[in-house]
Amino acid sequence: MTPNPSLVLNKVDDITFETYDAPTITDPHDVLVQVKKTGICGSDIHYYAHGKIGPFVLKSPMVLGHESSGTVVEVGSAVKDLKPGDNVAIEPGVPSRLSDEYKQGKYNLCPHMCFAATPSADGKNPPGTLCKYFKSPQDFLVKLPEQVTLEMGALVEPLSVGVHAARVGGIKFGDVVAVFGAGPVGILAAAVAKKFGASKVIIVDIFDNKLEMAKEMGVATHTFNSKTGGDYKKLIEELGQEPNVVLECTGAEPCIRMGVFCLAHGGKYIQVGNAPGDVTFPITEFGNKELTLFGTFRYGYGDYKTAVGILAQNYASNLPEIDFEKMITHRLKWEDAIKAYDLVRAGNGAVKCIISGPE
Amino acid sequence: MTPNPSLVLNKVDDITFETYDAPTITDPHDVLVQVKKTGICGSDIHYYAHGKIGPFVLKSPMVLGHESSGTVVEVGSAVKDLKPGDNVAIEPGVPSRLSDEYKQGKYNLCPHMCFAATPSADGKNPPGTLCKYFKSPQDFLVKLPEQVTLEMGALVEPLSVGVHAARVGGIKFGDVVAVFGAGPVGILAAAVAKKFGASKVIIVDIFDNKLEMAKEMGVATHTFNSKTGGDYKKLIEELGQEPNVVLECTGAEPCIRMGVFCLAHGGKYIQVGNAPGDVTFPITEFGNKELTLFGTFRYGYGDYKTAVGILAQNYASNLPEIDFEKMITHRLKWEDAIKAYDLVRAGNGAVKCIISGPE
Amino acid sequence: MTPNPSLVLNKVDDITFETYDAPTITDPHDVLVQVKKTGICGSDIHYYAHGKIGPFVLKSPMVLGHESSGTVVEVGSAVKDLKPGDNVAIEPGVPSRLSDEYKQGKYNLCPHMCFAATPSADGKNPPGTLCKYFKSPQDFLVKLPEQVTLEMGALVEPLSVGVHAARVGGIKFGDVVAVFGAGPVGILAAAVAKKFGASKVIIVDIFDNKLEMAKEMGVATHTFNSKTGGDYKKLIEELGQEPNVVLECTGAEPCIRMGVFCLAHGGKYIQVGNAPGDVTFPITEFGNKELTLFGTFRYGYGDYKTAVGILAQNYASNLPEIDFEKMITHRLKWEDAIKAYDLVRAGNGAVKCIISGPE
Amino acid sequence: MTPNPSLVLNKVDDITFETYDAPTITDPHDVLVQVKKTGICGSDIHYYAHGKIGPFVLKSPMVLGHESSGTVVEVGSAVKDLKPGDNVAIEPGVPSRLSDEYKQGKYNLCPHMCFAATPSADGKNPPGTLCKYFKSPQDFLVKLPEQVTLEMGALVEPLSVGVHAARVGGIKFGDVVAVFGAGPVGILAAAVAKKFGASKVIIVDIFDNKLEMAKEMGVATHTFNSKTGGDYKKLIEELGQEPNVVLECTGAEPCIRMGVFCLAHGGKYIQVGNAPGDVTFPITEFGNKELTLFGTFRYGYGDYKTAVGILAQNYASNLPEIDFEKMITHRLKWEDAIKAYDLVRAGNGAVKCIISGPE
Repeated sequence: MTPNPSLVLNKVDDITFETYDAPTITDPHDVLVQVKKTGICGSDIHYYAHGKIGPFVLKSPMVLGHESSGTVVEVGSAVKDLKPGDNVAIEPGVPSRLSDEYKQGKYNLCPHMCFAATPSADGKNPPGTLCKYFKSPQDFLVKLPEQVTLEMGALVEPLSVGVHAARVGGIKFGDVVAVFGAGPVGILAAAVAKKFGASKVIIVDIFDNKLEMAKEMGVATHTFNSKTGGDYKKLIEELGQEPNVVLECTGAEPCIRMGVFCLAHGGKYIQVGNAPGDVTFPITEFGNKELTLFGTFRYGYGDYKTAVGILAQNYASNLPEIDFEKMITHRLKWEDAIKAYDLVRAGNGAVKCIISGPE
Repeated sequence: MTPNPSLVLNKVDDITFETYDAPTITDPHDVLVQVKKTGICGSDIHYYAHGKIGPFVLKSPMVLGHESSGTVVEVGSAVKDLKPGDNVAIEPGVPSRLSDEYKQGKYNLCPHMCFAATPSADGKNPPGTLCKYFKSPQDFLVKLPEQVTLEMGALVEPLSVGVHAARVGGIKFGDVVAVFGAGPVGILAAAVAKKFGASKVIIVDIFDNKLEMAKEMGVATHTFNSKTGGDYKKLIEELGQEPNVVLECTGAEPCIRMGVFCLAHGGKYIQVGNAPGDVTFPITEFGNKELTLFGTFRYGYGDYKTAVGILAQNYASNLPEIDFEKMITHRLKWEDAIKAYDLVRAGNGAVKCIISGPE
Repeated sequence: MTPNPSLVLNKVDDITFETYDAPTITDPHDVLVQVKKTGICGSDIHYYAHGKIGPFVLKSPMVLGHESSGTVVEVGSAVKDLKPGDNVAIEPGVPSRLSDEYKQGKYNLCPHMCFAATPSADGKNPPGTLCKYFKSPQDFLVKLPEQVTLEMGALVEPLSVGVHAARVGGIKFGDVVAVFGAGPVGILAAAVAKKFGASKVIIVDIFDNKLEMAKEMGVATHTFNSKTGGDYKKLIEELGQEPNVVLECTGAEPCIRMGVFCLAHGGKYIQVGNAPGDVTFPITEFGNKELTLFGTFRYGYGDYKTAVGILAQNYASNLPEIDFEKMITHRLKWEDAIKAYDLVRAGNGAVKCIISGPE
Repeated sequence: MTPNPSLVLNKVDDITFETYDAPTITDPHDVLVQVKKTGICGSDIHYYAHGKIGPFVLKSPMVLGHESSGTVVEVGSAVKDLKPGDNVAIEPGVPSRLSDEYKQGKYNLCPHMCFAATPSADGKNPPGTLCKYFKSPQDFLVKLPEQVTLEMGALVEPLSVGVHAARVGGIKFGDVVAVFGAGPVGILAAAVAKKFGASKVIIVDIFDNKLEMAKEMGVATHTFNSKTGGDYKKLIEELGQEPNVVLECTGAEPCIRMGVFCLAHGGKYIQVGNAPGDVTFPITEFGNKELTLFGTFRYGYGDYKTAVGILAQNYASNLPEIDFEKMITHRLKWEDAIKAYDLVRAGNGAVKCIISGPE
């Protein structure tokens, strides 16, 4: 068997390098990918620090990682659209092929979803992507065009979260959008709003340096520090009008409330971030202003392809509209993968950290 | 001038009969209607008891009433579709003809709306419909077909609230609907869900007699007493499945919460009732189950016509699917109009009270 | 092996009874159904008479039939929602589980569709349902509730064509619908329009007896004989207004043209029947009246379930709104299956012919 | 009275300069605009050459022009959002404020529409914009931001046709669009598709120089000469895939047919150009591929504002994505206005001709 070096979360505070057997192609639609670049997600850190997220509880060692790109090394006999050497973004969740949710393109809601690096009830966790060889059905891989680097390919997963939110909420040309949160999810959701034609995008955060980065990246036309800038009326003043769309990417009650209050009549409130449970919520505003709230969960049919399409369009030009690279604040080698986790866990200005390899 | 007997709310706890001059046709599109039947709405009672609803504060005497039907007595020179003798339902709110909201059919959101019996900031309240002669532009009157009585015509206003909610939320054939609240709004919202093709409608309330009435009227296939029946899991058990649509018509926090928790993945939560301001709200469910919340406010383009269409279809058959008459628990003469307000204010089983006249 | 009596089209004008080996369960999600009732479709007759429909050319013997219901006799190990003895409607086309079309619920457009009794390029035709034992994946069977008979279950296939058309075109409460063609497809499309809330349904045909049947069945509020009744202006006159939806179920140029001309501004034209290729088409009307034309092809996600839901709702009442049985003009035994084909081919007033068995 | 120099079409082949009295403000919402730039439209030329377009027949002299921008000179007492000196694009058609069509934002379909320079049945033609002073209700003027010149303002009318088509057909990020016709309408429709996020836009025409211009302007990623390049299969080959959207802007049968045949399964065909009446039409493709055809007529609610928004966004950057100026092939002074009409009528490479003034 081919050895498969892997990064494994054994239990809270305990990550080690392990070597397992590499997966082998069993279904004619399978593809084997050598993982090249992997981003660290907030949820990874949550498992590292707490051993669970809501109902998902780590009961046995689990290979980490679900934001990855790689290069195809082997394809099953029925695979026609991919060949060894192709670079791909890996969509990490594979639903049941028979579920109603899958049939409607809403496979993010499939109760039988098998999602990389997400603990399952039986303790046999679906393998994460932080390993050398990862096996995927062909239709959960999206080929990267030449102008999209493998590093950018590792951004496709969180970018798809933004694509999904924008689609569910129907963001369109001319919309005026307020994005709460200038972390990776907020920045990428803002990028999607921009690409979908938003005429104004204001990003709201409590850290000036994060707001500054959003502006330098080209995803925000306006910024607002909700700690020092004032209340929702000040936000509207800064923007010059009420937004007609809110992308709430923090899950924090003060942001949720400000998002609802700042919206124009008939506006759309899109919840992207994981809110923490109950919040004190101004539901009356939804009736008075006839607002709509869209909950969103991960991504579904077409979102990954659109995310790759956004990167492809952005980097087709010599003068990319959005500087996605700027948000990759740290790049670490495979050998330093555990260090990478500690670094992101510590915070300190890490926006997106990318781990290479293993070779 | 023609005398116009009117029922006037002077201030909190003070209703009197007054006689004003009847309005006269000034615009070629105006129509003069003799009011025949008027329902009493919870908001009327709120002004009677508190003198205000949110930002709408009574500062000077105001003619009451906004749920009326009547008979055309005179039409302006440009009116072609109506003639004296026609029975009509009166849509009581006329927006600005130039507003963006009006142009999109969302005139309920027009900031310049002139709504009957709703206090305005300047103290010159738009006249209510509890009078003998009421003037309306022709396009805010809907002709009643033969099989729809004037009494049923007085139900068109609250029925339109249900139509609007069902349209905004996109209720369609086969939906499984939970309606919270068996008061007039809940019952009529349930009736619309039924007519739009809901395969199951469960009505939730804390009074068995109201649930019983909903079932006898033919608007509910199932009922659930949320005081004695148990929690949201029991509701699902009773219904045999999770509803995919909730029509929340109470504004009460326990109902709001139960409504969110009982919904199926991908479901729609429609807020019809006026919620009281902040509520403790399980927003996490919206992400996890990818729910959508639709705020709704009154009614807009087409809703009145559809409401009349529902009554017309219902009473075209010898065996009406829904017995709307059953919800009219009290019928009073014009002379007893003040008594009618006191009766509804006292509660005691009044669902919908209809005032006739004045002759 | 279990013998599987089957009705086989060998070539043009040549149908025989054959006995093959019955299929066996190989996938844990498979279900074996004993076929009980099968309707004859116009397309079956077309293959019988011409040996092909467009690109689908019969090259080798093919088991006929695709409008069937039956009783479950055996289920695979992973099947939970069905058990032996359950009555089911059989959805006869199974798409590729990996195709983009399947993922979006548009599996009718899947290029890898395997459709019963439809010739494939390689001459290995997917088996039809006119046999004793038919194998299907569990999710392409819909359980029939108690009040829906097996005979009605054989109507689910053509009824689903109507459901799909109504869904694609967005038929809703209050629509005014003109249906062209009073054959099985037209009648069932009209039935769906009625159930989706159409306030008026006018059926257009050139045979008075078919129009009469449509009215007696309860699917039409109005009828119009386009041979003797006059032109599209007369149709509008008969209906009392312009329809806002057309369901064209004939594919005949005169009907297509009348359908376009009679539509109201902003109306929807839904092509349900197979049109014969090029037609002389008044495309200018589409611009001038801003019409939309919806092409439709078979049925996709959810349509079969909704069709069963329509029958379930109809027969839940003691006084069914629509008398679907009336359209079943002929019922034949298995031994007479070839005679049934000849009978339908001859025309002569056969609307829907149902074959029983084999025992 | 203030003199109002005007360009008048008296009858076929007969245009003269006339001076009428300038309009005066009569309604508090009226605005008086001094017209600065006006484009010549194909329909103007049609009236010039034929005296009619379909049912619109010139019976008496008519002021020409409906593609204009200008500067506000006077406002009615109720006007708040505009003031003298503001530059505006003039939306030339004002519907009835009471019509159902207006209330739904579909005012382009209003049967009482009063449209500049379009003959009315009574011979009292609504005045065109080719004059010095033009009166408009405030809400049919859109203010031009600083970066949008008056010349660009004259493009807003045909650009709105493209916006409307893209909206009706729901063009969105990632669509692959084929545009038939490289005249002004085709080029501007392609520009809108680009701005709405189309990933590829292929323009089809029979003149290489027009295709070249489209490419230089930045509205096309691909071009195809349908006279010399081959059939629809070649078009697909050139594009690298089947388009999922067609914008047909010629009304010519060969283009209409090629548009239908080249579309991908599930694709959208949008008819923008005026087709000439009956065409030989491959309607079978609509069923087989489940295509949708969207007829479009002028523009409705929000389209003018979006068109101005497109220009504003384009010229906010130092490096505009689209070079709209390139399509203005001729600029003429007021004194040369008749010459301008002859020039456009002669063809010879005129794409868009702009007339200034009068001073």
